[in-house]
Amino acid sequence: MANSDYYTLKGYALKDPGPVTGAMEDYLEMICRMEGNRVQVRIGSLAAELHVRPSSASKMVSHLRELGLIRFEPYGAVVYLTPPGRELGEYLLWRHQVLHRFLCRVNRTENELELAEKIEHFLDRRTVENLARLMRELYPEEDCKSPPALL
Amino acid sequence: MANSDYYTLKGYALKDPGPVTGAMEDYLEMICRMEGNRVQVRIGSLAAELHVRPSSASKMVSHLRELGLIRFEPYGAVVYLTPPGRELGEYLLWRHQVLHRFLCRVNRTENELELAEKIEHFLDRRTVENLARLMRELYPEEDCKSPPALL
Repeated sequence: MANSDYYTLKGYALKDPGPVTGAMEDYLEMICRMEGNRVQVRIGSLAAELHVRPSSASKMVSHLRELGLIRFEPYGAVVYLTPPGRELGEYLLWRHQVLHRFLCRVNRTENELELAEKIEHFLDRRTVENLARLMRELYPEEDCKSPPALL
Repeated sequence: MANSDYYTLKGYALKDPGPVTGAMEDYLEMICRMEGNRVQVRIGSLAAELHVRPSSASKMVSHLRELGLIRFEPYGAVVYLTPPGRELGEYLLWRHQVLHRFLCRVNRTENELELAEKIEHFLDRRTVENLARLMRELYPEEDCKSPPALL
C-alpha cells in the first residue's frame, strides 16, 4: 500500500469545492419546496424552516443571488427562483425524494429525513438516476419519476 | 409549512457532534486496513495514505489515543489499535465495503471509492445492516458478510 486513492472527507471537499455548496443546496431545495406549496418565500420564513438565524439566511440568499439562482427585492425580502434556480431546485427536490424513498424501503420505515438530508449532497446525478432506476425495478409502485430536464 | 424537521447539514452536525468525528473514522478505518495488510502503521505512512500532512495525522492520532481507540509509543511513532479501536475499525471497514459494493452495483462500475468515502460517515449501523441484507437478497454472489460483533 502506498499513495492510495483515499482522502479524508475534508480532503475531498478541498479537491472539489464547486460553486454550489451543500448549504446552498439546502436553501435552494427548501425555496423550491415552499414555492411548490404556494408559500411566499421570505428570508424570515426560510430561516425558520431551516432552523437557522435570519442573518445566516440573508447571507446565503445573497450568495445564491450572486450565482443567478434567485432574485429578491432588498426591502421586500421576498425570494424568487430564477429559471436556472428553479431547474436546479427541482433536481435537488427530486434527488431528495428518490433517496428518501430508497432509505425508507431499505430500513422499512416511514421517515428517514435526517439521513437523506445528510447524504443527498454527496450524490452525483448519475447515481441518483441509477438509484431511481433501481427503485422502479424493485418497487414499481413507488412514484420515482424520471428526472427533471437535464441541467 | 412551519417549524419543519429540516436542518442544514451544519445544523445536523451541531445537533449531534458525537465523540468520533468523520475524520477520526477515516483514520481508524485506514489504520485497520493497513493492519489487515500487515503493514506496520506509522504516523508518516498513515499521513501519506490519507493525503494529509504528518502534523495533522499526529494531532488526530492523539485524539484517537485520548478516546482509548489506539495506543502508540511517542518516540517510535508506531500506532496500534486497542481492542475497542479494532472493533470500531472493523465495523468501519465493513461499512465501507457494503456501501462501496452497493454503489458499484447501482452504477454498474468497478470503482466508487470517492462516493463511498463521502457518504459512509453519515450511515448509521441499522442502515448499513439493512443495506447488507438488501445486497444479499439482490446479489447473493456478492460477499457482503454479516457485520462484525456488535459494538
